[in-house]
Amino acid sequence: MLIALLTDFGYKDGFVGTLKGVIKSINPSVDIIDISHGVSSFNILEGALILNSSYRYFPKYTIFVVVVDPGVGSDRKAIVVKTKNYIFVAPDNGVLSLALEGEDVEKIISVENPKFFLKADNNTFHGRDIFAPVAAYISRGVDLDLLGKKINKIKKLELPPVKESENQIVGQIIMFDKFGNAITNIKKLPTSIKRAWINDIRIEKIAKNFQEGNSEKPSLIKGSFGFYEVFLKENSAKDKLNLKVGDTVKIEL
Amino acid sequence: MLIALLTDFGYKDGFVGTLKGVIKSINPSVDIIDISHGVSSFNILEGALILNSSYRYFPKYTIFVVVVDPGVGSDRKAIVVKTKNYIFVAPDNGVLSLALEGEDVEKIISVENPKFFLKADNNTFHGRDIFAPVAAYISRGVDLDLLGKKINKIKKLELPPVKESENQIVGQIIMFDKFGNAITNIKKLPTSIKRAWINDIRIEKIAKNFQEGNSEKPSLIKGSFGFYEVFLKENSAKDKLNLKVGDTVKIEL
Amino acid sequence: MLIALLTDFGYKDGFVGTLKGVIKSINPSVDIIDISHGVSSFNILEGALILNSSYRYFPKYTIFVVVVDPGVGSDRKAIVVKTKNYIFVAPDNGVLSLALEGEDVEKIISVENPKFFLKADNNTFHGRDIFAPVAAYISRGVDLDLLGKKINKIKKLELPPVKESENQIVGQIIMFDKFGNAITNIKKLPTSIKRAWINDIRIEKIAKNFQEGNSEKPSLIKGSFGFYEVFLKENSAKDKLNLKVGDTVKIEL
Repeated sequence: MLIALLTDFGYKDGFVGTLKGVIKSINPSVDIIDISHGVSSFNILEGALILNSSYRYFPKYTIFVVVVDPGVGSDRKAIVVKTKNYIFVAPDNGVLSLALEGEDVEKIISVENPKFFLKADNNTFHGRDIFAPVAAYISRGVDLDLLGKKINKIKKLELPPVKESENQIVGQIIMFDKFGNAITNIKKLPTSIKRAWINDIRIEKIAKNFQEGNSEKPSLIKGSFGFYEVFLKENSAKDKLNLKVGDTVKIEL
Repeated sequence: MLIALLTDFGYKDGFVGTLKGVIKSINPSVDIIDISHGVSSFNILEGALILNSSYRYFPKYTIFVVVVDPGVGSDRKAIVVKTKNYIFVAPDNGVLSLALEGEDVEKIISVENPKFFLKADNNTFHGRDIFAPVAAYISRGVDLDLLGKKINKIKKLELPPVKESENQIVGQIIMFDKFGNAITNIKKLPTSIKRAWINDIRIEKIAKNFQEGNSEKPSLIKGSFGFYEVFLKENSAKDKLNLKVGDTVKIEL
Repeated sequence: MLIALLTDFGYKDGFVGTLKGVIKSINPSVDIIDISHGVSSFNILEGALILNSSYRYFPKYTIFVVVVDPGVGSDRKAIVVKTKNYIFVAPDNGVLSLALEGEDVEKIISVENPKFFLKADNNTFHGRDIFAPVAAYISRGVDLDLLGKKINKIKKLELPPVKESENQIVGQIIMFDKFGNAITNIKKLPTSIKRAWINDIRIEKIAKNFQEGNSEKPSLIKGSFGFYEVFLKENSAKDKLNLKVGDTVKIEL
């Protein structure tokens, strides 16, 4: 069995190590894989985008523990979602929504049975006290119905919409990757476009690979997040062009 | 067997990979878990706090390799500490002291037998040459007494003391976590307090979860390090309030 | 079997997790070890230096996947290099050259057989689509000759040369490690030197361990990359002395 972890816990503290210790204490033979712990703090959308770009490359029946959880300790639910291929364990805050769009959801459980939790004297670390132990018990074969009660609806997170008209498409930057590439919310573009801008900077072209780009002037490319990205060749578009989340990408058709 | 790694080696170089290569070369079947490699460079106190917040969540008999080691290559000892539940391998510089307060220490060995070291032509990387191979040999069942000689005393690191008087408690910030929460040295507070400050900024309240806080005005919460933390809701207290290690937290009772 | 990963993918996105998912999907029983994913973006030399400082500590027959690949999607080759002890999978851009200097190369394959690739609808992530699956198939015992055709020559990367004359040695800084130590291209120095400078700052001495250094004035030490490093005791030489890659180190004999 494989448990894959995606969190905004970072790489400084012992938070991630603690999750792994908890999991290994409950199921010593499970294999633990890190997707990333570098999600920007509290950024549910970024967590959703990263999960969506990676989960489908994991083996069938992988259990994903996704903890981007600004509402920890409040009354937001903890959920387990079983799809045809995978199991997801996460807070009910929308972080699973993009991944679940591509999955056949079979069952959703609101996790409520403290028998599968760690006892704790503080209320700030449900990754340790709820999500990790629940995932570990699932990896040992615990029946999902024992974890809590079935529910039908979970919180959904929507990407900001792309505005399309006859002769233009207007999108925006929704996150940056490690290289400073600017991921937009635009999934599809016609094969030929007239002109394009990021803010008021002209975009040179739609490139097929990063080498076709220019190191000073931005280009667009269909990237591995499934969206068009604004990039500079071997350079950070974010830093060099002073971009930020929400900036406008305009395509003239 | 499980070996858990905690270092200040960072995520840029091959230092951590090298440790793992050394361990796997000696014991291919051992399971290696990262606690964190993001301890601030040379910061023994931070390493001690992170170890103390995470080690107890690991399975019994886990071997911890803790390398925050500014004195590498000098005459500071390398030690192995066996407790009732765990084994710790580290430089003798105090990095284990907080964790060991909670453990029944059974044996301390000053590691001196070069038979269990890697031969090296430089003197800057005892993680690779001493701590990793020693831990790997221990995971293979090597008798601890073969590693060196028994000792009774190791270096102790003390947290800065909390000053308590009849009507106030004065503590300080001892580290920051990834979210910018400011960990203090205060472990206990009475259920009701009158007023509190971080430096000269008023602290709003003692919160039960982060959502109860305010995104501009600081609150206190009992955090997962076992201490009270100054935090802002979904914001970095460190950055927004310009805090640094050593800053004063004052509680009026 | 062991697959070791070294990339410039960073720790923010799901890139590394995706590689691992792909590998585990093809070979669930293979052990995956991270060397580092913090190589500076697009920095082939840094990747080569980090690989060279760590690969030899891994068990025989480890498969190394090294992806620092600014040319992804262009016509640069993907290669597999089998040496007496190891197998390396990487883009043909020089990133393997320093490691291969120390190895007996037995076979080089230009990877071209799409049967061992993932099908993808974009062209920006050969780590996912080519390097990871190829490594996973190799770990399952696939004959290297099935992957593509034998070649004899791969791209070589040269370190900037050290200039040696009768009474001086002039080198330069080639990278920084996590601690801010400045790695030079100087491998050997005579046992006694007259004077030394980093830029126009006098270097105090050649130290045997970091504790012998000074926290304000730079010293030299033979470091774990196999080169002399300029360092400050428990301090970042990079930040405190304002150093950058290419800065001159001059030794008077």
